[in-house]
Amino acid sequence: MKLLPVETALTFIEPGPLTLVTTFDAKKPNVMTISWTAAIDFNQHILLATGPWNYSFNALIKTKECVVCIPGPAMLKTAVKIGMLSGQTTDKFQKLHLKTYPAQQVKAPLLGGCIACLECRVTDYIASYGLVILQVLCVWKNERCRDTRLLHAVGDGTFTADGEKFCLRPLMKAKLPPGL
Amino acid sequence: MKLLPVETALTFIEPGPLTLVTTFDAKKPNVMTISWTAAIDFNQHILLATGPWNYSFNALIKTKECVVCIPGPAMLKTAVKIGMLSGQTTDKFQKLHLKTYPAQQVKAPLLGGCIACLECRVTDYIASYGLVILQVLCVWKNERCRDTRLLHAVGDGTFTADGEKFCLRPLMKAKLPPGL
Repeated sequence: MKLLPVETALTFIEPGPLTLVTTFDAKKPNVMTISWTAAIDFNQHILLATGPWNYSFNALIKTKECVVCIPGPAMLKTAVKIGMLSGQTTDKFQKLHLKTYPAQQVKAPLLGGCIACLECRVTDYIASYGLVILQVLCVWKNERCRDTRLLHAVGDGTFTADGEKFCLRPLMKAKLPPGL
Repeated sequence: MKLLPVETALTFIEPGPLTLVTTFDAKKPNVMTISWTAAIDFNQHILLATGPWNYSFNALIKTKECVVCIPGPAMLKTAVKIGMLSGQTTDKFQKLHLKTYPAQQVKAPLLGGCIACLECRVTDYIASYGLVILQVLCVWKNERCRDTRLLHAVGDGTFTADGEKFCLRPLMKAKLPPGL
């Protein structure tokens, strides 16, 4: 995996991809599938909508750390299986043969096979809406991942991958964030 | 436009599309381009990340109403132009020849040419993060829109449209929300 400038974090979250969020409590790592995410500013703050019904949630709030990983099409079935299992009863890494790599600034692991991994610190939790506010610390790009189409959960059990690309940079020049 | 069950609201927001949000203050409608959105629960609550720098924001907070419209590829250039203009100095509807239709429950208009339009009520505003919490009231589907691929803003001036579709409903059966 290769480190990218942290400003690129936005480009992995703003398109609304399916994500796999790893955590690490005192004993072991866990991973959950989350598609309720949003970019919220130009200072690498993003949010996840989740809550205590999610087993990883406790580790997330206690350790204040996670890695938001971005799976591509090769990982889609695995991502759905991760979402259907609970870390309370299953070691998802073992059961689904997930490969992990050590992160740089947090204890939660980077997930192999993903397009990118964003190391994050939990900076706030808005309990009334289950909103976890994250500061992205650094961005890893997986250079071995060939199919880098982002996945989008429709919410009804179907998913789409990125298709046609459009470049409107000339029209948007005046408003593009620096570094992108 | 045809009314869909409100439970379908999730399927237009969870995939992370570019949106066009219309408002209506005492005098006139306005529209802004927003790609920082998220689904946050299964009761048709969604959020937008925005703030007072956005001219429409005042109408949004004052009237507590808006319509979240979902443009397809045919509307992409228009969506970018909407994002580059300010309603403070420009009547975007006139300048960009936007067609509108009356909504059912709010004063903000439905936007012609979009894939779908979600009438929403503002139920809360979390000022510290610029998060506007919306309750979707009803969902309109534009039956005349042929190219219904959702658009995803990458954040760097490029966009992607939905491509390959994957159905994982059998694997997710136990967790699919009712009605979807």
